[in-house]
Amino acid sequence: MHNLIYAFPLYNFLKYCNSNSSEKTILDCGAGGSNPPLSLFHEFGYKTYGIEISEEQLKKAKIFSTEHNVDLNIIHGDMKDIPFSNEFFSFLFSYNTSVHMRKKDFSIALLEFHRVLKHGGLCYVNFLSEECDSYGQGVQVGDGEFKQIENNEEVFYIHYNENEIEQLLYRFELLYKEKRIIKRKIDKIEYTSTYYDYILIKK
Amino acid sequence: MHNLIYAFPLYNFLKYCNSNSSEKTILDCGAGGSNPPLSLFHEFGYKTYGIEISEEQLKKAKIFSTEHNVDLNIIHGDMKDIPFSNEFFSFLFSYNTSVHMRKKDFSIALLEFHRVLKHGGLCYVNFLSEECDSYGQGVQVGDGEFKQIENNEEVFYIHYNENEIEQLLYRFELLYKEKRIIKRKIDKIEYTSTYYDYILIKK
Repeated sequence: MHNLIYAFPLYNFLKYCNSNSSEKTILDCGAGGSNPPLSLFHEFGYKTYGIEISEEQLKKAKIFSTEHNVDLNIIHGDMKDIPFSNEFFSFLFSYNTSVHMRKKDFSIALLEFHRVLKHGGLCYVNFLSEECDSYGQGVQVGDGEFKQIENNEEVFYIHYNENEIEQLLYRFELLYKEKRIIKRKIDKIEYTSTYYDYILIKK
Repeated sequence: MHNLIYAFPLYNFLKYCNSNSSEKTILDCGAGGSNPPLSLFHEFGYKTYGIEISEEQLKKAKIFSTEHNVDLNIIHGDMKDIPFSNEFFSFLFSYNTSVHMRKKDFSIALLEFHRVLKHGGLCYVNFLSEECDSYGQGVQVGDGEFKQIENNEEVFYIHYNENEIEQLLYRFELLYKEKRIIKRKIDKIEYTSTYYDYILIKK
């Protein structure tokens, strides 16, 4: 299978996982969609697990699995209450999910990520920075939290600053951190968005 | 073949190339080494070409090709005088090479990249920023240019600022630009390095 996943920072996370000697078990929180990043880890011999709260995204992932004849083991589940026992996984990632979850909810998810990871296990998470052109669009519902209506549905855009993130991650040790300031030109207009990526180790 | 390349920004470049309708011909300038990034493009059906000036890196690439039974078509050549005719390639990349070439040499290489690219063709290049812990190490040989001795060999470390880069790239149109500030913790010490990545289109 030659499949390019678009969650590019996970290629770097895969490199970190590959050089760790733990059992190759990995959980994706927010694992659904039409091109599930878990397929990359599956290709590299990992036993994959995924949870996804949206039935629509689950359905898309199922279509991917059927078309590519690969079982990624993605089930319905809520990352605020992960349906696995303590220290079950060596590796865990959750890509772009903090962007659309309220801050209080994502802080609960982080407690769960910590709970289901083995000691010495690795975790990838990322955050949208306040340094984005889109910052402030929509209705403000909290500090850095904005609600927009897209296709008749409420979508949250949640922005963080660096101090706030690192306070949130205090249970983990920081192994790798990247700030990415991205400028894209689309129809001669430049758009800026900024992300923070973290690779963490459970102490 | 399940091969992870470590030049991670090229996964994003591949996405841009895949959505471009040009013929799938790609050149890597500085293509050698033990894990040639061209293998990624080969996997995705590109006709690959590479040039490499170092005999040692060429040899490593040859070993890779033999072990993986894949011909990436990498030849000896100098990116300041690319041995291909005008407008031969749809796509071209040169990863981390500006980091180790003198500024005047890399500006010649950029003229060559522009020459061998088709109109509308895409080019990926990156640069080391001045915002690095390693900035200033070694003997200064020019503006932002430092020489170090590694394994009895001279190695250049060449740092750029943003204005300087964008003056260099004036022949191209900017499609995508990323500034990456990376902090890695190795043995409890934090190291910072900063890169600029560009995806350019030949006007």
